[in-house]
Amino acid sequence: MGDVHTLNKTELVELYSRLEEKYGEFKNKNLSLDMSRGKPSPDQLDLSSGLFDILNTRTMDVVDHIDIRNYGGVDGIQEAKDLFAEILHVRPTEVIVGGNSSLTIMYDTISRALLKGVIDSDSPWEKLPKVKFLCPSPGYDRHFAICESLNIEMITIDMLDDGPDMNKIEELVSKDDAIKGIWCVPKYSNPEGIIYSDEVVNRFATMETKAKDFKIFWDDAYTVHHLTNEQPHLKNILQACKDAGHPNRVFIFASTSKITFPGSGVAAMAASEENIQFILKQLSAQTIGPDKINQLRHVRFLKNLDHINEHMKKHAELIKPKFDLVLLELDSQLRDNNIASWSKPKGGYFISLNTLDGCAAEVVKRAAEAGVKLTKAGATFPYGKDPRDRNIRIAPTYPSIAELKVAIDVLCLCVQMVSIKKLLND
Amino acid sequence: MGDVHTLNKTELVELYSRLEEKYGEFKNKNLSLDMSRGKPSPDQLDLSSGLFDILNTRTMDVVDHIDIRNYGGVDGIQEAKDLFAEILHVRPTEVIVGGNSSLTIMYDTISRALLKGVIDSDSPWEKLPKVKFLCPSPGYDRHFAICESLNIEMITIDMLDDGPDMNKIEELVSKDDAIKGIWCVPKYSNPEGIIYSDEVVNRFATMETKAKDFKIFWDDAYTVHHLTNEQPHLKNILQACKDAGHPNRVFIFASTSKITFPGSGVAAMAASEENIQFILKQLSAQTIGPDKINQLRHVRFLKNLDHINEHMKKHAELIKPKFDLVLLELDSQLRDNNIASWSKPKGGYFISLNTLDGCAAEVVKRAAEAGVKLTKAGATFPYGKDPRDRNIRIAPTYPSIAELKVAIDVLCLCVQMVSIKKLLND
Repeated sequence: MGDVHTLNKTELVELYSRLEEKYGEFKNKNLSLDMSRGKPSPDQLDLSSGLFDILNTRTMDVVDHIDIRNYGGVDGIQEAKDLFAEILHVRPTEVIVGGNSSLTIMYDTISRALLKGVIDSDSPWEKLPKVKFLCPSPGYDRHFAICESLNIEMITIDMLDDGPDMNKIEELVSKDDAIKGIWCVPKYSNPEGIIYSDEVVNRFATMETKAKDFKIFWDDAYTVHHLTNEQPHLKNILQACKDAGHPNRVFIFASTSKITFPGSGVAAMAASEENIQFILKQLSAQTIGPDKINQLRHVRFLKNLDHINEHMKKHAELIKPKFDLVLLELDSQLRDNNIASWSKPKGGYFISLNTLDGCAAEVVKRAAEAGVKLTKAGATFPYGKDPRDRNIRIAPTYPSIAELKVAIDVLCLCVQMVSIKKLLND
Repeated sequence: MGDVHTLNKTELVELYSRLEEKYGEFKNKNLSLDMSRGKPSPDQLDLSSGLFDILNTRTMDVVDHIDIRNYGGVDGIQEAKDLFAEILHVRPTEVIVGGNSSLTIMYDTISRALLKGVIDSDSPWEKLPKVKFLCPSPGYDRHFAICESLNIEMITIDMLDDGPDMNKIEELVSKDDAIKGIWCVPKYSNPEGIIYSDEVVNRFATMETKAKDFKIFWDDAYTVHHLTNEQPHLKNILQACKDAGHPNRVFIFASTSKITFPGSGVAAMAASEENIQFILKQLSAQTIGPDKINQLRHVRFLKNLDHINEHMKKHAELIKPKFDLVLLELDSQLRDNNIASWSKPKGGYFISLNTLDGCAAEVVKRAAEAGVKLTKAGATFPYGKDPRDRNIRIAPTYPSIAELKVAIDVLCLCVQMVSIKKLLND
C-alpha cells in the first residue's frame, strides 16, 4: 500500500475500509494468541529436561564439605558461585547465589536499602524525604513496578543507540542526592536489544554522583542469550567501577530463568567483596540459605560457560526463526508505509516497535479485540505511561511459528488501521 | 552427689575439684560436637531421598492447566495449596505457597508491612514513630533476629505452661497501638515444647487491640512433628479469629523444612482470603512466582496429611531415642542436685534447660571450651539477653546417639561446675 503519508483523504478512507474488512475476518476467527511476555516456548524448556534426572540418590553427594540437603550456606554453594563468577566475569567471592528469581533479588536489594541502607548510606533510604531512580526507557516493566510498589520516584531517561543518555544522567546524578539508583539492562536491553558501549560503561563508572550511596542496578539478564554467532563485547562494569575508584557502585544481577526453567532456575547477584559482605550480614535475618540442591542440579547440568554457550545455541536455533519471521513480516507489511520503525536485535527476548506518536495504546487495544494479546502499551515506561504513546514490545518466543505469523499479521493490520485513523484525524 | 544446696563450703570445694578433673579429661579428648541448631540428622534426610527421583522426564507433566516449568503462579500451584490447606486446616484459597523458607516468608511479610502496611493499616509501619512486637520467651532466636534487624522494639512476654502470659498480652495490646504484632510457635514451642491451650487461642482471637492492624505471626513450624503417637489438639486460630470477628488478625506459617530437606523444601503462609488477596497484590512486585517444580515434587512425594503423618513417624523413630537419651541423662545426672529443670516435649526439635539464675552463659562457654557447641546463651530471648541468664536450648536431633551421650555428659558437668561456683560465690 506504499507510504500512507502520500495518500489523500479519499484514498485513506478507502484503504481503511479495506483494512477494516480484513480485521473483521481475523475477529471472526476467534483467535487467542499471546505475545505479551518474554516466556520461553515449551520446546525451549524441553532443552533442559536433563535437569530432572541429573541429581538422584546415586549422583547426589556431599559437596563443598557441607550436606547440601541441610540448612545453611546463605550465599549459596561454592560450585554455583564459581559458575556465576564465570558467567559474569567476576570473582567467586564477589557472588551471592540465591533462589529462583533475580527479580526477587533486585526487589529485596531495594527493600533492604529502604529499611537498612546500602554500604555507603548515612541512613536507611526510607528515612529520606524522597528516593528517586533513573529509568532508561523503553525499559523492563518489572523494574519500574518495583519502584512504583516501593514509592520510589522514577525519572525517565531516553535510550540512545549505545545505551541511555549519559549526558542527562551525569547532569542529574551530579546535582540531586535523592537519586539513589538507576536500572540498566546492558546487553540486549529489554525491549530494544541495545548493547551498552564501552564509553557508556566508562561514564557510569567514573561519573560523580551527589549521593555517595548511588547504586547501579545492572540487570545482565541476557548475558548469554545470543541470537547469532556473534558474541558482542560488553565492558566489565565491576572492573570499570573498581578502576574508577567506585568499587561499591554496582550491583549485577543474572539468572538461569531463560537458560533452563523460568521459575525453577537459580539467580545470583555480584558486587564488590565489601558490598557482598555487607549484604550477607543483612541477608542472614531473611534466610538461612537458598535451595542448594537446585543450585547443584544447575551446576551439574550447565557445567561451565562454554557448555552454557552451547546450550544457548540450541535456544537460538528455536527462537531465531521466530525473530526472523517477525522482522520479515514487519518489513514486508510495514516498511513502505512509513508508519513504524523497529529494532533488529542480535539477542535477548524482544523486538521493540515504535508506531506513529499516539498510536500504541490503540494498536494494542485493537489487537486484543482480535484475540492477539500484546504487552500493555506504555508498560515499557515508568508508571506505564509512554509519553509519545508509540512503543510496543513484541515477545516472539512463546507462540509457535504458525501462531506468530497470524499474530504479526493482526499486529501489522492494527498498526496500519490506527495510523490511517490518526492521519485522517490530524 | 545429691542436692548441692545441702553441702557446706568445704564439701562444695572438694566436689568442684573432682568435677574439674573430669572436665579436664573431656577437654583432652578434643571433642567437636554441635548441639546448637535444630537440624535434622543425615539419616533423617535420607528418609526423603525419594524426592530426587519422583519427578523426571517421564513423570513430569503439565498440571493445573499451566506448564509448571515456565513463569507464573505467584501463589503457587493448586496441588501445593491443597496440601498446605490440609496440613494447616484452612481452605486452599487461604494459602500462598512460596519458596524454600518460611523464615523468608515471615521476614518478607514484616518487610512489606514496614514499607507498605498490612490490610488494616492507615500507613506503612515504617512511617510510625515506633513499631513494637511482643516476644513470648524463651522463643525462637530467628524471630527475634528479624525484629532486631528491622528495628522493631521487642517486649519480652513470659511463657507459661499453656502458652504465653495472656493477662500481660491483653493488658499491653489494649493500650499501646505501637504494638503491631506477636511471635507465636503454638505447637511444640521453640524451645520449650509447649502447646497453646484452647483458652490461649481464644483469648488471642477475641482480645481487643489498640492497633487495628495488629497481627499474630503464628509460626506453626512443628505442626506435624510429633515424638509420640499422641497428636495433640491445637485450636484452629484462623477459625477462632473469624468467629471472633477478627478474620484478618492472624498470619500462619509452615514449611516442609523438617519434613523433607531443610533449605530445599517448600514454605507457605495461610490467612483470611482478604489478607491473601491483599498480600498477593504486594507480592507481585517481588516475584513472578515460586519454584513450582519443587512444589510438585513435594506434592507427589508427601501426597496428603495421612501420608505426611506416616512419614513423620519415621522421623520420630530416629529422633525420639535422642530426646529420650538427653532426658534420661539429665534426670540421672542433674535431678537430685536441685540445680536445673528442663522440658519434656512431646514434639518439636528442642529441650529447654533452665539452670540456676546467672549460670547459663557460663555453662555454654565452658561446654564450648570442652568442644561442645550449644545455642548461644540468651539466644532464646529478645536482643540475646536472658534476664535471668538461665535458659539453654538443647537441640538433640543432629548428633549421633554416641556423640549426644558425650555432649550431654559435658553439658551436665558444666551445669554442675558452674552451679557450685555460684553457690560458693553467693
